[in-house]
Amino acid sequence: MNSDGAVAQGLAALVTQFSRELGSSGVLTGDDVAARSCDPFTHIPPASPALLRPRSTSEVASILEQCHRAGQRIVVHGGRTGVAGGAFASESELVLSLERMNRIIEIDPVGCTMTVETGVAIETVQDAAAEHDLLYPIDLGSKGSATVGGTIATNAGGNRVIRWGMTRQNVLGVEVVLADGTILDLQNRFLKNNTGYDLKQLFIGSEGTLGVVCKAVLRLVPRPTTQHVALVSSDSFTHVLDLLGRARALQQLSAFEVMWQDYYAIVASDPARRIVEPNAPFYVLIEIMGYDETGDERAFSALLEHAFEEGLLVDAVLASSSKQAEDIWRVREGSEILVREMGPFISFDVSVDIRQADAFVSAVRAALAATFGDYRSVAFGHLGDSNLHIGVHLGPETRSRELEVETCVYGVLREFGGALTAEHGIGTSKRDFLPQHISPEALATMGKIRQALDPDRLVNRNVLF
Amino acid sequence: MNSDGAVAQGLAALVTQFSRELGSSGVLTGDDVAARSCDPFTHIPPASPALLRPRSTSEVASILEQCHRAGQRIVVHGGRTGVAGGAFASESELVLSLERMNRIIEIDPVGCTMTVETGVAIETVQDAAAEHDLLYPIDLGSKGSATVGGTIATNAGGNRVIRWGMTRQNVLGVEVVLADGTILDLQNRFLKNNTGYDLKQLFIGSEGTLGVVCKAVLRLVPRPTTQHVALVSSDSFTHVLDLLGRARALQQLSAFEVMWQDYYAIVASDPARRIVEPNAPFYVLIEIMGYDETGDERAFSALLEHAFEEGLLVDAVLASSSKQAEDIWRVREGSEILVREMGPFISFDVSVDIRQADAFVSAVRAALAATFGDYRSVAFGHLGDSNLHIGVHLGPETRSRELEVETCVYGVLREFGGALTAEHGIGTSKRDFLPQHISPEALATMGKIRQALDPDRLVNRNVLF
Repeated sequence: MNSDGAVAQGLAALVTQFSRELGSSGVLTGDDVAARSCDPFTHIPPASPALLRPRSTSEVASILEQCHRAGQRIVVHGGRTGVAGGAFASESELVLSLERMNRIIEIDPVGCTMTVETGVAIETVQDAAAEHDLLYPIDLGSKGSATVGGTIATNAGGNRVIRWGMTRQNVLGVEVVLADGTILDLQNRFLKNNTGYDLKQLFIGSEGTLGVVCKAVLRLVPRPTTQHVALVSSDSFTHVLDLLGRARALQQLSAFEVMWQDYYAIVASDPARRIVEPNAPFYVLIEIMGYDETGDERAFSALLEHAFEEGLLVDAVLASSSKQAEDIWRVREGSEILVREMGPFISFDVSVDIRQADAFVSAVRAALAATFGDYRSVAFGHLGDSNLHIGVHLGPETRSRELEVETCVYGVLREFGGALTAEHGIGTSKRDFLPQHISPEALATMGKIRQALDPDRLVNRNVLF
Repeated sequence: MNSDGAVAQGLAALVTQFSRELGSSGVLTGDDVAARSCDPFTHIPPASPALLRPRSTSEVASILEQCHRAGQRIVVHGGRTGVAGGAFASESELVLSLERMNRIIEIDPVGCTMTVETGVAIETVQDAAAEHDLLYPIDLGSKGSATVGGTIATNAGGNRVIRWGMTRQNVLGVEVVLADGTILDLQNRFLKNNTGYDLKQLFIGSEGTLGVVCKAVLRLVPRPTTQHVALVSSDSFTHVLDLLGRARALQQLSAFEVMWQDYYAIVASDPARRIVEPNAPFYVLIEIMGYDETGDERAFSALLEHAFEEGLLVDAVLASSSKQAEDIWRVREGSEILVREMGPFISFDVSVDIRQADAFVSAVRAALAATFGDYRSVAFGHLGDSNLHIGVHLGPETRSRELEVETCVYGVLREFGGALTAEHGIGTSKRDFLPQHISPEALATMGKIRQALDPDRLVNRNVLF
């Protein structure tokens, strides 16, 4: 424990006390902490003197109650896959990790619910649901590591929001420990429950600033038995919008992902991901998932045929196997190629009016060109959800000019009335931009809520605002 | 203005001031107030000296700001179709009605949103959406009068929650006036927006206790082009559950409404609503809505055929016209027959574990028999959503023994871990039962939130807790 000398005496005493309560494997220190990373990009470890690993809600409550009395700050860790810096912890903060609270408690196949401890990984939840022919619809690239707790804290989105909604729409109940150690049992299992304020909504998407979610009741849906995926190219954004309008009328629609040419050209440099020719301005991954083998295939073919007849498509490739479907998805999930070909880059996760998405992308490019001259950028995203991701690279000085790039892009975003973050959250990294993108009245109201639940700002103090 | 003498001087001065600001048609007094009803059952008028009818958010803000300064209480009125007594107003309270704020502001057919003033009726919203081949999916018997504002305040449910969710799932943004007159612009239009706390969630389902919602951005879905409805009877609850499991696998499923024999026997006394023979213990209305004429019909027929083959059904009638579909829906919406045949009755709106719904109904009957001897009851509801409605009649003394009946039924409900209200809300009528159905910690947290936003409890003071 090299850092012990720097630890305040009160903090050291708390850690000693927690070691007694949680056992030796319940408290990590020294190299065991330094070996961890707080985020998937920069892999910065927590600077904390200790990382606590409770095994139960009552242990979490005991930790928070003691920290509350001692005025000790806590940073909460889930799978640490978040990209907004929400897991960074300073040397005066303790880390509370839910990694040992990862049990699946109950599955109700009739009510279509699953009750879990929130340290469980999304993929584990999906696998357990599949055993009952059910699906937990939240699906992320990082599902192997991302936890239910982390996705609740950030109201995670992902690939199938257009069909099943964000995490918020898929959580029926929670058990939360408040900053003062109070256990709040909100484990609702019903689709309909208006018994007082729906308090769980406070904890979903508040990035861990209002309490620690220890258990969750998740809503499951029948597991789809069909999947059809196509990659198409299109010659105009108007045609892409027409295609979206038609695709929306398929209730089986589970993804509508648009990639601008700047993105596709880079990813298609990998021959395995060059599914259609990279000669068009727009590429769309369309996916449907359903329960009717004949009907779904017919509906998907009809969609694409009509789109062709009406000139909406330049080219189209339909996956004829699940392997091909995976290959097409790998086009959309080409971040490792982006990292290789244009890393480092500053990434953006915004929502804009779908009708203006291409105008927004053009305006961002114009602003980047005017500000930086030489730059590279890519644009892609969940267009059906209004959600765009943009990556910007300025050469070797990209990281050092991050603030300038953000100021430039968010300036354009404000003109378009867009949202600062669609699904990644504010974390610590967008915190300084928040006041420019919501009203002072909204910010003040958020402050009142935080003040009401964690007046000393002991939980995730540096996150959000 | 007969009641003028009883009006406190400060209140009278405020009313005079509001008359100046809102114009004479903006403030109703005397008989114009006494002619109104606060609820659809007892038609009790507000006891208020005046009813304010602002035309804009800024007028609402001015009213609330002045009331805040004067310590004047306000009760907010939408369409006054709520059945939990949320609109009752005393003589020391002013009524604020949103009835003149009923404009449809904008429809975005690409983003599938509609922005409205919240005094607009649900049916008006549905009609406006239909002109763009879109649907606002919240559907209630009272849709002609119920307003967007009222349904947001109560997080209204209705018939198609199993498909499209509660009101909460269909509201993207709101504009709210807080109790102190602060205007909070939360008019998000995006499916994905994690820019800070999702404050709108506070105002949805809080029954008007945290502020007045003046505008809303609603989420629309493509308007279904097919509808198939059947009424079936079944000989056991296990078979009803099996049928639900099968029906859920139809993504077109839009309603799964179960009626116990006590309900059906009464409604089927109307020959037009005797669709199947009243000789079975359970009746189910199944509806699908979709976008594929051939596929949907095939899927619906297949569902019913397989259910027959497996012995899940005693009898079944499929609607072969929209007229017949309406007739079948009138079986489920037979409240006027209930009123005629077993009025007055105490009505319950609870959620219970779907698997235990029949055991719950039996336990309620046993408890009623043990407590009251002679009684009549009916049970029906949105079983796919866990939501049951139960009506209880004790003869002429039903109303005077309301509290005893409620105590009896809610006692059973607690044993089953059910929810005190699924979709109607707490209002004033279930307020005394709330503390028995949520934890003290949850109630205290609700109090903290209310304290943070309306410390003087000036808005809807008697509602909820």
